[in-house]
Amino acid sequence: MNIKLVMQYDGTRYRGWQKQGNTENTIQGRLEQLLEKMTGEPAEVFGAGRTDAGVHARGQVANFKAATNRTPEEIKAYINQYLPEDISVISAEAVEERFHSRLLAKRKTYLYRLGVGCGKNVFERNYIWHTEAEPDVARMQEAARLLIGTHDFSAFTTTKSKKSTVRTLFSIQIVRVEDEIRFSFCGNGFLYHMVRILVGTLIEVGTGKRTLESVGELLHEEKRQLAGFTAPAKGLCLMGIEYL
Amino acid sequence: MNIKLVMQYDGTRYRGWQKQGNTENTIQGRLEQLLEKMTGEPAEVFGAGRTDAGVHARGQVANFKAATNRTPEEIKAYINQYLPEDISVISAEAVEERFHSRLLAKRKTYLYRLGVGCGKNVFERNYIWHTEAEPDVARMQEAARLLIGTHDFSAFTTTKSKKSTVRTLFSIQIVRVEDEIRFSFCGNGFLYHMVRILVGTLIEVGTGKRTLESVGELLHEEKRQLAGFTAPAKGLCLMGIEYL
Repeated sequence: MNIKLVMQYDGTRYRGWQKQGNTENTIQGRLEQLLEKMTGEPAEVFGAGRTDAGVHARGQVANFKAATNRTPEEIKAYINQYLPEDISVISAEAVEERFHSRLLAKRKTYLYRLGVGCGKNVFERNYIWHTEAEPDVARMQEAARLLIGTHDFSAFTTTKSKKSTVRTLFSIQIVRVEDEIRFSFCGNGFLYHMVRILVGTLIEVGTGKRTLESVGELLHEEKRQLAGFTAPAKGLCLMGIEYL
Repeated sequence: MNIKLVMQYDGTRYRGWQKQGNTENTIQGRLEQLLEKMTGEPAEVFGAGRTDAGVHARGQVANFKAATNRTPEEIKAYINQYLPEDISVISAEAVEERFHSRLLAKRKTYLYRLGVGCGKNVFERNYIWHTEAEPDVARMQEAARLLIGTHDFSAFTTTKSKKSTVRTLFSIQIVRVEDEIRFSFCGNGFLYHMVRILVGTLIEVGTGKRTLESVGELLHEEKRQLAGFTAPAKGLCLMGIEYL
């Protein structure tokens, strides 16, 4: 059976989605351990978005293959019972054999929450990155328009992979909601650290540390050292994956 | 100077508002320590609601007297800078000498959040108490109507104080919001554990474990052992204090 899971997690305590050896505390590792306990066989779970350490998810999609007599609802109940309080399965369903959560993903949406102003939000403190300098939303929206589309985003990643660094950003929305600025990115895929570097670069535009022109140049110069800082992980959340 | 503070805190890590010797980790203790550091003199902070261990606040009011040249805004900035991330001062203002946050409070509002249904809410897990059995909202609303008004609430507390146990409940609202049932209590004051026992008793009515009549009897029998269980601290939040 090929099972598709939609999951939420608070990434604060974890070293990210992807397992990195046996001793690391990762979401994938926790899940595979539990599924092995459930089925008695080693399990491999594929996640659509390989979120970094400290990054959260409200709509992560994962899948795994297992020989089990349990229904998807029973698998969901089993996982929710044994996984810690900060990881939750929202839904589980049996899908066709060829479904692969990452390889078939068509659109991914990430949200970055930036706290502005002088108040601390004690209840959302692990999900919002707070900054003193308040960036200008209209200027960031102008810069965002330059980034939308299909580009080589190699200036916006810290990987050294030889794979393609071309991605398509379908939309970037930047809105002020009370004491927060919310950045929403929808694209066909994101490179390692890409959303956090996009946010850092946009904040630099919004605080006047960087010109609009410099943003356009990043898409041609393709040098990481020219882009903005990497915004901290805790403000970032994987919101959803679409397969169309 | 008499300074009035409005505060928020996530009570998860604390032993409640009220200090209990030097070694306990309480909100009052943390605040007094910091103010002593600021002014060089011992400080006593009065809180309007003496929240229990694990209970949260979005609108706690406190006051203290201090000889300082700092403005209220500077005091707020000082406290927010040095207090941990899970305690925050929303506002600070100089008030008249006779103001006392607890003795002059006229209305207090508490919110209890009960999670229902099979989903875990990973992001709000410290602020919602989750129960498997789903209580009937309409039945709880009926029971709540019996509790509104001025009564001897000694069945709804675990103190052994000889002080009056008569309190006035102005309103109890019970509403379903998505996967949550929210209980809002507004009264002129609350006894130790009173809100949590009210919630436990209402849940017992809503799940059919207790009759409506038994609720009315509690206000005359005044025996703690007849009332419902004490709902866990983490679902409770002090929302605000009014002085009229």
